[in-house]
Amino acid sequence: LTVTRTQKLRAELFGEGLGFLMEAHNALSAKIVEEFRFEGIWASGLTIATTLGFRDCNEASWTQVLDVVETMADVTTIPILLDGDSGFGNFNNVRLLVRKLCQRGVAGICLADKPFPKLNSLVGDLQPLAAVDEFCGKIKAAKDSQTDDDFCVVARVEALVSGAGMNEAMRRATAYSAAGADAVLVHSKRSSSDEVVAFGHRWARRTPVLIVPTTYPAIRPETIQAAGISVVIWANHNLRAAISSMRSVCRQINEARSAAEVQGTIASVGEVLELFDHAELLRANELYGT
Amino acid sequence: LTVTRTQKLRAELFGEGLGFLMEAHNALSAKIVEEFRFEGIWASGLTIATTLGFRDCNEASWTQVLDVVETMADVTTIPILLDGDSGFGNFNNVRLLVRKLCQRGVAGICLADKPFPKLNSLVGDLQPLAAVDEFCGKIKAAKDSQTDDDFCVVARVEALVSGAGMNEAMRRATAYSAAGADAVLVHSKRSSSDEVVAFGHRWARRTPVLIVPTTYPAIRPETIQAAGISVVIWANHNLRAAISSMRSVCRQINEARSAAEVQGTIASVGEVLELFDHAELLRANELYGT
Amino acid sequence: LTVTRTQKLRAELFGEGLGFLMEAHNALSAKIVEEFRFEGIWASGLTIATTLGFRDCNEASWTQVLDVVETMADVTTIPILLDGDSGFGNFNNVRLLVRKLCQRGVAGICLADKPFPKLNSLVGDLQPLAAVDEFCGKIKAAKDSQTDDDFCVVARVEALVSGAGMNEAMRRATAYSAAGADAVLVHSKRSSSDEVVAFGHRWARRTPVLIVPTTYPAIRPETIQAAGISVVIWANHNLRAAISSMRSVCRQINEARSAAEVQGTIASVGEVLELFDHAELLRANELYGT
Amino acid sequence: LTVTRTQKLRAELFGEGLGFLMEAHNALSAKIVEEFRFEGIWASGLTIATTLGFRDCNEASWTQVLDVVETMADVTTIPILLDGDSGFGNFNNVRLLVRKLCQRGVAGICLADKPFPKLNSLVGDLQPLAAVDEFCGKIKAAKDSQTDDDFCVVARVEALVSGAGMNEAMRRATAYSAAGADAVLVHSKRSSSDEVVAFGHRWARRTPVLIVPTTYPAIRPETIQAAGISVVIWANHNLRAAISSMRSVCRQINEARSAAEVQGTIASVGEVLELFDHAELLRANELYGT
Repeated sequence: LTVTRTQKLRAELFGEGLGFLMEAHNALSAKIVEEFRFEGIWASGLTIATTLGFRDCNEASWTQVLDVVETMADVTTIPILLDGDSGFGNFNNVRLLVRKLCQRGVAGICLADKPFPKLNSLVGDLQPLAAVDEFCGKIKAAKDSQTDDDFCVVARVEALVSGAGMNEAMRRATAYSAAGADAVLVHSKRSSSDEVVAFGHRWARRTPVLIVPTTYPAIRPETIQAAGISVVIWANHNLRAAISSMRSVCRQINEARSAAEVQGTIASVGEVLELFDHAELLRANELYGT
Repeated sequence: LTVTRTQKLRAELFGEGLGFLMEAHNALSAKIVEEFRFEGIWASGLTIATTLGFRDCNEASWTQVLDVVETMADVTTIPILLDGDSGFGNFNNVRLLVRKLCQRGVAGICLADKPFPKLNSLVGDLQPLAAVDEFCGKIKAAKDSQTDDDFCVVARVEALVSGAGMNEAMRRATAYSAAGADAVLVHSKRSSSDEVVAFGHRWARRTPVLIVPTTYPAIRPETIQAAGISVVIWANHNLRAAISSMRSVCRQINEARSAAEVQGTIASVGEVLELFDHAELLRANELYGT
Repeated sequence: LTVTRTQKLRAELFGEGLGFLMEAHNALSAKIVEEFRFEGIWASGLTIATTLGFRDCNEASWTQVLDVVETMADVTTIPILLDGDSGFGNFNNVRLLVRKLCQRGVAGICLADKPFPKLNSLVGDLQPLAAVDEFCGKIKAAKDSQTDDDFCVVARVEALVSGAGMNEAMRRATAYSAAGADAVLVHSKRSSSDEVVAFGHRWARRTPVLIVPTTYPAIRPETIQAAGISVVIWANHNLRAAISSMRSVCRQINEARSAAEVQGTIASVGEVLELFDHAELLRANELYGT
Repeated sequence: LTVTRTQKLRAELFGEGLGFLMEAHNALSAKIVEEFRFEGIWASGLTIATTLGFRDCNEASWTQVLDVVETMADVTTIPILLDGDSGFGNFNNVRLLVRKLCQRGVAGICLADKPFPKLNSLVGDLQPLAAVDEFCGKIKAAKDSQTDDDFCVVARVEALVSGAGMNEAMRRATAYSAAGADAVLVHSKRSSSDEVVAFGHRWARRTPVLIVPTTYPAIRPETIQAAGISVVIWANHNLRAAISSMRSVCRQINEARSAAEVQGTIASVGEVLELFDHAELLRANELYGT
């Protein structure tokens, strides 16, 4: 019996253990996430936008994002959770997207209670929270549109980030769960994890909880589990690593006017070719070629 | 007076100095190449394919490659030379592609004298060279289709790689130049640069020459210039750096079950946001927002 | 001296005569519009959506619409005015789109003062008008983003359709012009042209005016010109003709279980091949083939 | 128990009766084909290319064709057979395409024994037939790549069109069947059906046979069935009808400078809105809107 990707994501959310989703922004990084046996892939809105040369405010169209996440799904077998921002429009845009995600093998979507276009919360406090009713409509629409029973809809609660406070976060998480959200992602941009831990304790596993410790990376697994949180998202670390290393190799090659020095410090061309199994082409050529 | 990108590429090819093109595979890496003041960007077939989860045998369609290179052009001002493989089909496919490249702000295309679909020459010796006549037809078609007078068509000579020898390389380079190629790229997969240097001396600047020292990275700028070669392409180093660093950060985070350790070794989220100027959104919001 | 497409559109808007834009929904219909010497092409949101199997509520992403309109521009030389709905998001989405339209050879965009996603006004009265300030921000953003000086931004006034009345329509048209709109499109869904004619007289050519006589097709050219209106848009007639004829041919072939009867009533395969000049391939093959 | 689209196509091919596939070139025409209860949809290479402004020689990339056929599948429930030309490259390109067609809900692919890029056989006799071995490799590759057991691979035999004769057509059909083709499409460009009928009799239902009576539209259903042919493809009639009617409506509107006369002869805007059920948006708004 095969376990599907949506079942795997569901198992991570609802299981006893602590699961980790690692960020990917294209097929290559998704493949690397799978290589290191993370429980799943976080298809980040910010990092997908950045690789496309866009900013994190829904400059990339929903079909461009879909095309990227499809390439991720095509080369991996672990579940992918798409950062769906605020859903690329209203409830109807959410319905279209969810149907397509199910078709392309994406295991879940995370929707944030912000307006469209959504501005990255680290840029500035320009945006109000979405109205609870409106956002619940999107969640219902998403759930009613999934063509795979195990597809997961995660509701991202921005109340703490926006300064609306813990009670508002609880009120919203409650409403979103009632609307059908399979899990809630409670977001915080504090440098301490106190806020999300407090949320976890108050929420008391009413649904699974996910966190994104970008600003509080030192949080310990024990702390997370004790707070009833089941999934951690490392939301942008692959892209950040890639940026640093590309800058480093550019600097070195530029200064040396030679690639001799960097040669041993970067993946070989052979490793590049192995990633998507060029050797299979030779075997296939035996079977199908002339 | 503005110097266009095609004029910049032409100046690199025909100028006295030695220019360096650095590989990029998406808008992000293209932006980083520009940041380090390389003379131009090499939009690599291998690395674009790899980021899309494809293999280097024209699995990616010509429109997918066009979409990628457009995002590179949109965020940079330095010239981009596209690795156009064998032109995605016959002369007619080349015509279409060249017209679109001119529209999207790409400065030149490199066409290789191989069949379509082209297999990466490092995978195996499965493919014959293209017939000289057929390939010259593609070069003529490319030149006749460019809508920007300064657009460059570079003919990539695979004779040395395929073992056909120096005389064949010279014969082909001569034919391709006569067909209208603005420059020739002489490729070698030896670990020594002797072959390309010998070609350079024999060719004696009849057209500009480009080389791709992937297997002979220690070649010195003085040697290159003495051989009458004007442009060096670092063909895959950004991707190789990104792969290594993503693997490293995945390994560390996975083992530590924490991102605390890697935090200081990778670009900050602030740096990510600066790349495509999220701050401009705040200024634009003053002008156009409510 | 070549007259550009943007100059042609501008000439139609600001000239003395009356110009007609005919609807197209893909490259084929655009080509046919050009064949019949209309002054330009109306790339309709409704009909593009319908050919894609989408509804007229921004189900199609902005990049999907861009891809369609690009294919129209590639096969024609007359100006194209894109029905840009409410701009696919906020001012920032408008900026992106306008830059791309200029790149792809589209001559102008029409923006409607409705929310995003926009619902076709014939479906129901679900949507309020956009706030004047917000919409003026989009117009300014569009004008500041055009990379071709002659690109036109047309502001579509929905006040009459929404029942807000003539004074509101005048107030909005005035504000939109002050914000930089090159022209206003005054929309009405009455079966009489009285409303738009009255608007034209009151507006008195302060900017060019466009109308869309879908519900009042019998309006006479003399009436239109007397009202100071310079451009008429036949907004969906090609698609409507195509639907009728495809239904008719499907019905006949299905009933007869033969295509013999319809053969003489539809374009020949030769005519299909002539549309995009397959014969040129034979000539090109002489030049570039082997 | 639901019957899948691939099962429906298989049933048409292998059943006793005679099935008819009607051409579509986009979601709209596909929807109309379904409306008239044809057994399936022929997604034509020629007509899809024409609507995109391309010529029938693989100017459209495989991903552009895939995008079009996906929109057809999204709005219909009857099977779609894609005209896959010569497979967009070699066996490996065929593999990719077949996997994607299965994902997007397309029921089968027809592959022609011609080179890539393929030139429409009505344009000129520029192209040789593909080598039998090479083409059999594509068929095997297609069959081994399908992820839906009932997906159909149809081998299109161009021997009669190319003048290679009946024996060659039989030899090739035999080889293609042995390689795994589910059915053969025997093509002829004669104005009489004698050739395909003769083929049918000689083939004697060794596999299902499909024909494309573009040049011999008067062929009778009884003749077809007696020859052991199970599926007829009306390969381009919707597009040809659309072209005629769009030209007609353009001519009339242009001459009259009014749409009053054509109004009653074309589909109403209401009919356009009904095609993809805009009324559902109002119901959905009750459920999910605010």
